Amino acid sequence: MATSRRILDILRIGQPGETVTVRGWVRTKRDQKEFSFVEINDGSSMAGLQAVVNADLPDGAETLKRANTGASVELSGTLVESPAKGQRIELKAESITVFGEADAETYPLQKKRHSFEFLRDIAHLRSRTNTLGAVFRVRNTCANAVHQFFQERGFLWVHTPLITASDCEGAGELFTVTGLDLEKPPRTKEGTVDFSQDFFGKRAYLTVSGQLEAEIMAMAFTDVYTFGPTFRAENSNTSRHLAEFWMIEPEMAFCDLNGNMDLAEAFLKYVFQAVLEQCPEDMEFFNKRIDKTVLETAQSIIENEFERITYTDAVKILEKTDKSFEFPVSWGIDLQSEHERYLAEEYFKKPLIVTDYPADIKAFYMRMNDDGKTVRAMDVLAPRIGEIIGGSQREEREDVLERRIEAVGLPKESLWWYLELRKYGTVEHAGFGLGFERLIQFMTGMQNIRDVIPFPRTPQNAEF
Amino acid sequence: MATSRRILDILRIGQPGETVTVRGWVRTKRDQKEFSFVEINDGSSMAGLQAVVNADLPDGAETLKRANTGASVELSGTLVESPAKGQRIELKAESITVFGEADAETYPLQKKRHSFEFLRDIAHLRSRTNTLGAVFRVRNTCANAVHQFFQERGFLWVHTPLITASDCEGAGELFTVTGLDLEKPPRTKEGTVDFSQDFFGKRAYLTVSGQLEAEIMAMAFTDVYTFGPTFRAENSNTSRHLAEFWMIEPEMAFCDLNGNMDLAEAFLKYVFQAVLEQCPEDMEFFNKRIDKTVLETAQSIIENEFERITYTDAVKILEKTDKSFEFPVSWGIDLQSEHERYLAEEYFKKPLIVTDYPADIKAFYMRMNDDGKTVRAMDVLAPRIGEIIGGSQREEREDVLERRIEAVGLPKESLWWYLELRKYGTVEHAGFGLGFERLIQFMTGMQNIRDVIPFPRTPQNAEF
Repeated sequence: MATSRRILDILRIGQPGETVTVRGWVRTKRDQKEFSFVEINDGSSMAGLQAVVNADLPDGAETLKRANTGASVELSGTLVESPAKGQRIELKAESITVFGEADAETYPLQKKRHSFEFLRDIAHLRSRTNTLGAVFRVRNTCANAVHQFFQERGFLWVHTPLITASDCEGAGELFTVTGLDLEKPPRTKEGTVDFSQDFFGKRAYLTVSGQLEAEIMAMAFTDVYTFGPTFRAENSNTSRHLAEFWMIEPEMAFCDLNGNMDLAEAFLKYVFQAVLEQCPEDMEFFNKRIDKTVLETAQSIIENEFERITYTDAVKILEKTDKSFEFPVSWGIDLQSEHERYLAEEYFKKPLIVTDYPADIKAFYMRMNDDGKTVRAMDVLAPRIGEIIGGSQREEREDVLERRIEAVGLPKESLWWYLELRKYGTVEHAGFGLGFERLIQFMTGMQNIRDVIPFPRTPQNAEF
Repeated sequence: MATSRRILDILRIGQPGETVTVRGWVRTKRDQKEFSFVEINDGSSMAGLQAVVNADLPDGAETLKRANTGASVELSGTLVESPAKGQRIELKAESITVFGEADAETYPLQKKRHSFEFLRDIAHLRSRTNTLGAVFRVRNTCANAVHQFFQERGFLWVHTPLITASDCEGAGELFTVTGLDLEKPPRTKEGTVDFSQDFFGKRAYLTVSGQLEAEIMAMAFTDVYTFGPTFRAENSNTSRHLAEFWMIEPEMAFCDLNGNMDLAEAFLKYVFQAVLEQCPEDMEFFNKRIDKTVLETAQSIIENEFERITYTDAVKILEKTDKSFEFPVSWGIDLQSEHERYLAEEYFKKPLIVTDYPADIKAFYMRMNDDGKTVRAMDVLAPRIGEIIGGSQREEREDVLERRIEAVGLPKESLWWYLELRKYGTVEHAGFGLGFERLIQFMTGMQNIRDVIPFPRTPQNAEF
C-alpha cells in the first residue's frame, strides 16, 4: 500500500500544498450539490480530517454513495487552508476509495448520542466513538508515562506471576485456576477434590497483587515496579470494581516511608502532566462533556505540594469539625470516603498523604512503629478523587514479621521465602500500589470503570 | 535516608575525588591485614563497586566481620582511581553500615557456582547472582524497547482481557477460571456442573492470545499492540514451554502482509540493537559464559536484510538439498525445526520470512489467497533460533471468514463480534505475535525458559 499519514500528524503539522494519502473510517458525510464533506478519523486524534470530495472525480458519485458513516476509506489529495471554523486545514480530495462499507440501516454508531450502557454491549465498535476513543488514547498515554517515569529513574519493570498457589494477602475472594476435569475431578480418600492431581500439583489462584514477589526483586535490583493485571472474585456490581484490572506496584529497597511518599507524589504529578501535555484535545473534551472538574483536579495534583499528616492527626481534625458524617469518627476506625474527601476538599483543599494507620486495619507486612499500635502505612488522597494510592514501608525485621504473620493467622510455611528475605541481607524497603483503571477514571472523569478498560470483566460478564 | 548513587552510574561516570554513598549487597569480601576489599552490588549493573574498607574506621573491624556475602550495607567515601585490573574506579570507604547480615553457614549464595536447577528452588534469591541479574536487566531493557518501538510509531498499547469465555483460537488446552465451590458445584438438571451460576455467568478460561480483541482495537485506532500475559495448560515439561508467559501482538489496519513483514523485521532489529547498546556488559557476559553465539546472532539480525520466500519455494529448496532430514519434506507439511534451521543457517545464512503457508496447517483467521490453498501467513526464522515470530494478514472478507469458521467447526455464535468487524468498515489488516520469554532466551542464550522469567509456572510448579 502507498505510504499514508496519520491524521493527528496532518492536523498538527500538515501544510497547505502538501499531497497526502489518509486512511480511516468515515464519521460523517454531508452531501452538497456537487461535492460532499467527508470527515474521516483514524483513531490517532479526537478531531477527524475534513475532506472535500467532488462528485465529478472518477467514480466519484458512485463511491461517495458507499462512503457512509462507518465505512473504511482511503483519500488522496492536497491539503488546503480550511475556510471552516475550528479547523486549520482540510483535504481537497483527488481520489477516494471505499474498502468496506457500513450499512446505514444496521450500523449501530449513527450520529445520535448513545448511552455508555448501550456502548458496552457493542464493545467491538465503541472505540470508534469520540468518548471511548479519547479514553483509550489517554489510557495509552498514561500507561506509557508510567513506564517512562520508572525507567528514567532506573527502576526495572518486573513481571510477577498471575497464577499463584498462595492467598497471602488475604485480600478478598480469589478465582481458582484449574486444569482439572470439573465434571469428574479426582478425589482424595476423604472425598474432597484432589488438587494434588491438578496442573500445578496444588490448588492455584489468580493473584490479587504482585507486591510480595516485587519485594523479592527489589532485594536484588533495589528499585523495581510491576505493571500488570490482577484479579478480584468479589461479587461487586459497582462503578468502581472490576474482576480483572491492571495494577502498578513500585517497590524500593533502602527506602523508608518518606522516600515512598516522595515517589508517590512525583509519580502522580508526572503522569497527570504527561497526559495534559500529550492529549490536550482529549482532556478538554472530558472537561467539557464528561466532568467539568477534571482539568482542575489535574492542576491541583500537579501544582500543589502534597500535605503529609498522620492518621492520628487526621482523626483529630475530623473529630473537631462541625461537619456531620454518616460514619462517626474515632481513633481506630478505617477512614471512609466522606472523611477522606473532607480532608482533601474542604480542610486542606489539596492532595494529602495520611500515614501511620492503626495496625489492626492494615496488612500484616506493614512496618510496625515503636508505639506498637500503628504501622508505616500511607494513603494518598486527592480532592474529588479520594484514595488513589495505598502503600507502606514493609516490615523488614524477621522476628517482628513472624509474630505479625502468626497474629493474623496466616500460614507461615507458605511464606517461607518472604521470611527468608528478612534473614539474608534485609533492608528497609517500601512501596505502593495503585489501580490503573481508577487512575484513568480520575483523569477522565468517566463515571463507570467499565468504560475505561477495553473489555471489562464483571459479575455475569466476560463477553468479547 | 541520605541520597545515594546507583553503582551503574558510578562505574560509568563517577570521577576520582567525588564523595558518594552507595547501598547494596556484599558479593565478596577479601580480608587483608589492615583493611578489606568489599565488592558490593545493587542490581544496577553486572559489575559491582569495589570498596576498600579500613579496619580502623569507627567500629570498622566489628562491622566488617558482619559484612559477609549477602549482607546489605551502606558505604560512604571518596572515589579513587583503582590500581586493580579491569576496574576504572573504586571507593575508599570512610564509613560502613551493615543493615542486615547473611549468615555464612546458611546463606545459599556463597561464592561457588550453582546449577540453574538449584537456583530455581531459591527463586527468591537467585536474582542476586550474576547470570540471573543479567537476565532480568536484559529482560527489562528489552521490554522497554518494545514499548518505545511501538510508541514512537504511534501504536496504542491496548490491554486485552485475560479472562475469556471463548476458546476461539483453539490453540491447545485452556485453564478454567472459576469462582464456584469446587467441592460442591451447582448442577444442572442433567447433572453437569452449572457454569451459568459461576462468576461470569458462563464457563471462563485464561486466554491464549489477545489477537482477536487487538483486531477490534485496530479497527478504531489503526495501529495497536498488546504486551501482556497469556496462558497454556499444556502439560509440556520442556525447556521452551511455560504455562504463563508474556506475549507481544501488534495489529495494524490498512496493512497487508508486506507491511507486516516490514514491521516484524524493523521490530527485531530495534529490540536487539537496544539491548546491545544498553546492556553491553550483560550481553558480553552471556556471550562468554552462556552461549558463544549470542552476539553473532544479534548482529545477524541487526545487519542483514531478511530474505522473503514463499512456503512453496521453501519446500522446493528443502526437497532439492542433499541434506537428510528426520522428517521428510513435501508440500503440505508443517516445517519442522530442522527444516527452519537449515533454511536460516545453511541455505540463506541469515534471517528469513516464509510466507503463504497451506491453509490446512494455519489458523482460520488468516487471509485466503486466490489459489484457494494457501493463506497470507508468515513465520520469521533466524539462524540458531528458528521460528521467532508468527503472523498473518487477517481475513477481512465476511463471507470468506464465515466459510472458514464453519469449515474448521468453530461456534459462529461466539464469534459474532469478530464477524461484525468485517461487516462495518472492514479493511485489510495484519499482525503478528511473539513470545517475550522466547525472545529473551534467544537474546541471552539461556537454555531453559524457566530462567528468563522471575517466577516460572510449569507443570507441578507454582511456587513463590
